[in-house]
Amino acid sequence: MSSVQFDRIALIGIGLIGSSIAYDIRRLGLAKEIVVSTRKAETLKRAEELGLGDRYTISAADAVEDADLVIVSVPVGASGSVAEEISTHMKPGAIVTDVGSTKASVIAQMQPHIPAGVHFIPGHPLAGTEKSGPDAGFPGLFEGRWCIFTPLPGTDETALKKLRHFWETLGSRVDEMDAEHHDKVLAIVSHLPHIIAYNIVGTADDLETVTESEVIKYSASGFRDFTRLAASDPTMWRDVCLHNRDAILEMLARFSEDLASLQRAIRWGEGDKIFELFTRTRAIRRSIIQAGQDVDAPDFGRHALDKKN
Amino acid sequence: MSSVQFDRIALIGIGLIGSSIAYDIRRLGLAKEIVVSTRKAETLKRAEELGLGDRYTISAADAVEDADLVIVSVPVGASGSVAEEISTHMKPGAIVTDVGSTKASVIAQMQPHIPAGVHFIPGHPLAGTEKSGPDAGFPGLFEGRWCIFTPLPGTDETALKKLRHFWETLGSRVDEMDAEHHDKVLAIVSHLPHIIAYNIVGTADDLETVTESEVIKYSASGFRDFTRLAASDPTMWRDVCLHNRDAILEMLARFSEDLASLQRAIRWGEGDKIFELFTRTRAIRRSIIQAGQDVDAPDFGRHALDKKN
Repeated sequence: MSSVQFDRIALIGIGLIGSSIAYDIRRLGLAKEIVVSTRKAETLKRAEELGLGDRYTISAADAVEDADLVIVSVPVGASGSVAEEISTHMKPGAIVTDVGSTKASVIAQMQPHIPAGVHFIPGHPLAGTEKSGPDAGFPGLFEGRWCIFTPLPGTDETALKKLRHFWETLGSRVDEMDAEHHDKVLAIVSHLPHIIAYNIVGTADDLETVTESEVIKYSASGFRDFTRLAASDPTMWRDVCLHNRDAILEMLARFSEDLASLQRAIRWGEGDKIFELFTRTRAIRRSIIQAGQDVDAPDFGRHALDKKN
Repeated sequence: MSSVQFDRIALIGIGLIGSSIAYDIRRLGLAKEIVVSTRKAETLKRAEELGLGDRYTISAADAVEDADLVIVSVPVGASGSVAEEISTHMKPGAIVTDVGSTKASVIAQMQPHIPAGVHFIPGHPLAGTEKSGPDAGFPGLFEGRWCIFTPLPGTDETALKKLRHFWETLGSRVDEMDAEHHDKVLAIVSHLPHIIAYNIVGTADDLETVTESEVIKYSASGFRDFTRLAASDPTMWRDVCLHNRDAILEMLARFSEDLASLQRAIRWGEGDKIFELFTRTRAIRRSIIQAGQDVDAPDFGRHALDKKN
């Protein structure tokens, strides 16, 4: 159905995202050759066992030689060193993109190392699960998901079109916005939720009056919804915190302010105020379901699955 | 398979929990007669359309006449007035229980109205979904879920055993603890998660720099996990906040303290501290999955469902 879009694609980093891209490239026949590179020998070996590429190398510099498309899928804190390493090895006309969750920082790290004639198009597929590593990847991860490009001024239109077509073939819908706006949007829809989830799970873990085994035992009454996000890759999320600091701190400040106000309403028994907030938030979920961004089945549809336990 | 356990069961309140109990009583043949009562004529009519009982009445006092088991499933703030209304109408030897999410307050509200000879056993099935009302109920809701009793000193052992047997027939596992401990445990595993979820959704709704449509569009990157809890019944949750105030305020204080510390680590770029927290929380999810309290499928298993969109 699809056809070859690039002769050689180099995948730098082969975790959940990299490996899912590899499965889709293969499945859809989008490249003649897939070169896989990752820093850890052990991960590279695993990628080979899974048959994710045609060639495997520890060296990112080697991997990008003659590649038409280079996809960097590493924790955002590692973007700069990858860009530096591959800098002089890319061929003119190649497209380099990434999948990082923060964009201004990735651009600041990578852009200085991109030689003239190479097209750098920062990207961010909004897809993933709480699992990580090459074993977590699967074909179809990007289907129906958004992919956001944050192109730099003067980006080559043909290259942009080619990359857009690539992601669309993977089933994604592509949006464009500037990096600063991306970072603000993601701070609220993704970074803050993860940070809050990590935090509440940490709070529960530290209690003396309620045991950890009680928390685990009774978690189905709400707590478990947070543990999914709090089980995400720690390296990736540490880097997100460090590399989207300003937007995250702003969202955290607003969240804390709102929480203090809600806390005060609880302390003073202001039922109407509490009721008003709890009613307003219901509407947002309805919109999300209408927009096809979540399932309407109660309990995320997992009820049927967890009754088996 | 099962057999009649009570001649007449009165269900006061017929929302998600009451209606699910009704389905199970019928399905398992646990009563000769089910009497359904609720304050709103419209809801009562709907319960009748759904065939949830054998008899329907607006009057809780009428409903409990000659009932062997009375199950009060109303928002916790309404427990006191229900108890007052049924007080002189229950027959000696009857068992009265409730399903409220806070127990000390429910006991304080109901206990004064329970006449001698009637067995009051406060209970709390840890089951439910984000949906509410009689249409949200379904058979099997309590299967594999915990039900916590917080019996008062001197509770009749036979009555306790009978009620335990009832919930076990519905598929629940029954635990016992004192009301104060219950309220602390639930504050962390259920009340705090709901409050945090309501709060973050409210924060997102109030932003000027990121539009609501962007929040909805990109919600799959984390935010949507919170919207499920934030879509829960506002009346029920307002009442929980007002009736478990002290335990909730304590948990909120700890959560905010931890969040301030995490915020500081982000501001000062303390990567190791962030990484340590993000790693620790991963272990808790593993324990929850091992304990059979959540599914291990990525994305709560909803991926297959939402790819259809």
